[in-house]
Amino acid sequence: MILVTGNKNKIKEFEYILGFKIENIDLELEEIQSIDVEEVARHKARTAYNILQKPVIVEDTGVYFEELNGLPGALIKFFVKNLSLEKICSLIGENRKAKTIACIVFFDGEKEIIVKGETKGVIAKQPRGNNGFGWDPIFIPEGYNKTFAELTSEEKQSKFMRQEAIAQLRDKLTT
Amino acid sequence: MILVTGNKNKIKEFEYILGFKIENIDLELEEIQSIDVEEVARHKARTAYNILQKPVIVEDTGVYFEELNGLPGALIKFFVKNLSLEKICSLIGENRKAKTIACIVFFDGEKEIIVKGETKGVIAKQPRGNNGFGWDPIFIPEGYNKTFAELTSEEKQSKFMRQEAIAQLRDKLTT
Repeated sequence: MILVTGNKNKIKEFEYILGFKIENIDLELEEIQSIDVEEVARHKARTAYNILQKPVIVEDTGVYFEELNGLPGALIKFFVKNLSLEKICSLIGENRKAKTIACIVFFDGEKEIIVKGETKGVIAKQPRGNNGFGWDPIFIPEGYNKTFAELTSEEKQSKFMRQEAIAQLRDKLTT
Repeated sequence: MILVTGNKNKIKEFEYILGFKIENIDLELEEIQSIDVEEVARHKARTAYNILQKPVIVEDTGVYFEELNGLPGALIKFFVKNLSLEKICSLIGENRKAKTIACIVFFDGEKEIIVKGETKGVIAKQPRGNNGFGWDPIFIPEGYNKTFAELTSEEKQSKFMRQEAIAQLRDKLTT
């Protein structure tokens, strides 16, 4: 079983929650145009399986802004790449509600497991914090007054979207 | 040679500029995540060729907002689908400059022809006109004070991005 990611933190997180060491590889996989993380992750799992010919686990996380009717979702990476986080914050007006969804797909050529975790929150008025990457400095999860990038490592072990999805994957892999 | 599009107007436009009748098919092709129309169109041409096993022509058009550092480009379809045109107009602030790029790719399994046409313009303060589709009502091409959707059919035969690209394709196919 190979986890397809180049992100060291994600690997640790998977191993911690799954409870076993997992092989990993950093593959540049083409992704299909969609705002839906499930569609993107399922397609990515097939692409990775076709290349590796071994059971794979892939992950995709999106951010859905309520004011933009769900945009950018899985396309958040292009917002982060092309715009500053300040600019993203200023694109959002009154309605700052957002949610982030992590989708993990296991695929072994036949069996497919799809799990998802969701965290609701709001988009900060401006980016805050350094303890994170990507859009972490602009997302304030529900029940907190800190952005993901302001949370301590301890607080980050709370059950947010990705941890929730990994826990579901663990349960489904062992049944 | 098969033109992959379901858009009757585009078919007419291709035949008019190419100067011959062209077979066409409406295929739902998966597109890769990119703001770059060339990357999207080249990938789409390969996918279409793999399915049809005949020389194919595909097209992709994007809109690049200067204030959003080039976003959404080839991803404009998600903006149009998820947001109202009014909302897109209001996302853009002071700098309303934009450009639209049409990329056409011919691929026959070996030979690849890539051509592009570009039209500069500005994004209207609000949508105007009914003579068009998609984002036509919000794009005002340079040298006009009308949106694409306000131009007459005659004015639309001017050399805008797609017509420019088709003319280049015609020249490359015949040399």
